[in-house]
Amino acid sequence: MTNPAAAPRNGPALIEVDALTTFTSALLQAAGMEAEKADIVAEVIVEGDLIGHHTHGVSMVPTYLSDLRDGRMTGRGDIEIIHRHGACATWDGKRLPGHWLIRRALEEACAFVAEHGVATVAIFNSQHTGALAAYLRRVTEHGLVGIVQSSNPAGSRMAPFGGTVPLFTPNPLAAGFPTHGDPVIIDISASITTTTMTQTLARRGERFPEAWALTADGHPTDDPQEVVHRGGSLLPLGGNLKGHKGYGLAIIVEMLTQGLSGFGRADRPTGTAQSIFVQVIDPEAFGGRDNFLRQSTFMAEACRATPPGPGVTQVRVPGDSAAGHRRAALSKGVPVSAEVLAGLVTWAEELGVQSIDEPNRRPPA
Amino acid sequence: MTNPAAAPRNGPALIEVDALTTFTSALLQAAGMEAEKADIVAEVIVEGDLIGHHTHGVSMVPTYLSDLRDGRMTGRGDIEIIHRHGACATWDGKRLPGHWLIRRALEEACAFVAEHGVATVAIFNSQHTGALAAYLRRVTEHGLVGIVQSSNPAGSRMAPFGGTVPLFTPNPLAAGFPTHGDPVIIDISASITTTTMTQTLARRGERFPEAWALTADGHPTDDPQEVVHRGGSLLPLGGNLKGHKGYGLAIIVEMLTQGLSGFGRADRPTGTAQSIFVQVIDPEAFGGRDNFLRQSTFMAEACRATPPGPGVTQVRVPGDSAAGHRRAALSKGVPVSAEVLAGLVTWAEELGVQSIDEPNRRPPA
Repeated sequence: MTNPAAAPRNGPALIEVDALTTFTSALLQAAGMEAEKADIVAEVIVEGDLIGHHTHGVSMVPTYLSDLRDGRMTGRGDIEIIHRHGACATWDGKRLPGHWLIRRALEEACAFVAEHGVATVAIFNSQHTGALAAYLRRVTEHGLVGIVQSSNPAGSRMAPFGGTVPLFTPNPLAAGFPTHGDPVIIDISASITTTTMTQTLARRGERFPEAWALTADGHPTDDPQEVVHRGGSLLPLGGNLKGHKGYGLAIIVEMLTQGLSGFGRADRPTGTAQSIFVQVIDPEAFGGRDNFLRQSTFMAEACRATPPGPGVTQVRVPGDSAAGHRRAALSKGVPVSAEVLAGLVTWAEELGVQSIDEPNRRPPA
Repeated sequence: MTNPAAAPRNGPALIEVDALTTFTSALLQAAGMEAEKADIVAEVIVEGDLIGHHTHGVSMVPTYLSDLRDGRMTGRGDIEIIHRHGACATWDGKRLPGHWLIRRALEEACAFVAEHGVATVAIFNSQHTGALAAYLRRVTEHGLVGIVQSSNPAGSRMAPFGGTVPLFTPNPLAAGFPTHGDPVIIDISASITTTTMTQTLARRGERFPEAWALTADGHPTDDPQEVVHRGGSLLPLGGNLKGHKGYGLAIIVEMLTQGLSGFGRADRPTGTAQSIFVQVIDPEAFGGRDNFLRQSTFMAEACRATPPGPGVTQVRVPGDSAAGHRRAALSKGVPVSAEVLAGLVTWAEELGVQSIDEPNRRPPA
């Protein structure tokens, strides 16, 4: 085992993907998660790092380990099926890891979709879900369209447009579409910026580049401290003039996740109790897979061929950057910052898990 | 028949809803639309005015009448069913009025949804659709969730984020959710502002309040002339810094409308050839209608109870303003501007249609 102090100081370690996944799963298992679940959760977590979403990758593992240890995350057992009707299902997620719940929901939906054309799963009481974009490549690889949305009815960071008291979480919405090339994978949220970004900037004493938040009395501000320490709120996408659009988006996600699952803010949950909406659509049940791919490939290529504006070298399609990160990480190793790696190694020592072997920790290129 | 010059100069005429609908239907029929279709199209158009979306109400009728006369809108005949699979359908809309196509798609979806839980219709080759919000009350009145999205693959106003050449239309996305009170009805688009607003401001020589557009070489601008006359483009929701979010939203709408229907930009259509996505979801197939209404009503009331910010008297839920307009118009008459009314009356004379009777044209309050 390597001393964390040996991790390169001037850049992330590059860790072989299987080694990082096995290590992550071992940590989760040592903290009480069933092996079958831990393997899937580790796969989704590492996929987050593979596509460059490091805030939702292995950096989250220490939080999950303490959540498992302290009983905030359920590591063993099954969902409760609340309702099943045609290609629709509703589950109580029992605070099992969202990674496992969404993967399972997408697998069931992908299985149902051949018969029904559209398959939909609503889940409540899910623990943290990681990056929603990390789930969709497996769906698009089957030539299917995938939609995943989530909200946390126990959290509130963004006020209804025109108001001053936070009610919504940023309510992410992700969608994946197959093409003849890399899939189009979109992962956006209803607020201008994220909770994580706001906390990071506040910690560093930095500002937003524009007024992305409101003070507690409803004045636009570029100071993240107003949100983190003084009762302010995140502005919805569209900002102070057009924020009714981000507000509308937040409500759509809220209703499809909490409304359909039947559990949400009205139940005043605490902790991490996310509600999730998963839908898989088979283009073959509509205008046909070939026609879908013809449209999606044409659109993606038209976007990439668009003359770029000032300071832009290449117009990208959502998912292009992720696909680039993924290819690099698969060939050179998954970048893990020295700080994050040190945290994992400390947990490995505490839990008696064998740490990442030296050969798997390649020096930065 | 009243001379249009008699219409009040200092405010809109207030016209009784049935009279306005009958008049609109008569105009459409006189221009060649089948009675059954004209009645439904007129109902949807007037609903646009009822909920305050006057840009998509009877002000559009002259355009529809010339489109009918010149063969750009199909007034007679039926859709072609391209595919049917479970509760999924794909139609060639044959450039029939979008109002009729969407109403029919929603009716079929509402009928299918009891058995399947989720019903979905993809349509291509639709003529203009009016305001998407105008369709959803009928869905929510059945306790159902409705989603309608549309794009026009023959149009291009908004560039992919980072690019300078328009590719997308604003790609509206509407959703309706039932509550124990007024329905929540959201109607947003992927661009910061609309094509209509841009054209109106450009005509008046006015500016956007912020940089809502790009010049042809990709610099942010508040001048609508840059879009209308100088090859610029509308900025996606999120603007110059966070426009990847509006870009993602545009792609989602593009793929669900053109990808699923199988007809879109790759076919390089001309004129108005919209692609449409309609989905109806029955909460009863998930966590149950009562639980849905409990969540949606709680959310709507929590939004309305939020302390308002500076200059705001009451935080509104999307649909509140429409419901207010609707109640007022049902009791006092539908407001129609003197200019729009004069245009309709001119068309009535030309088509030999009996115009609105004097008793139905109440003076403004």
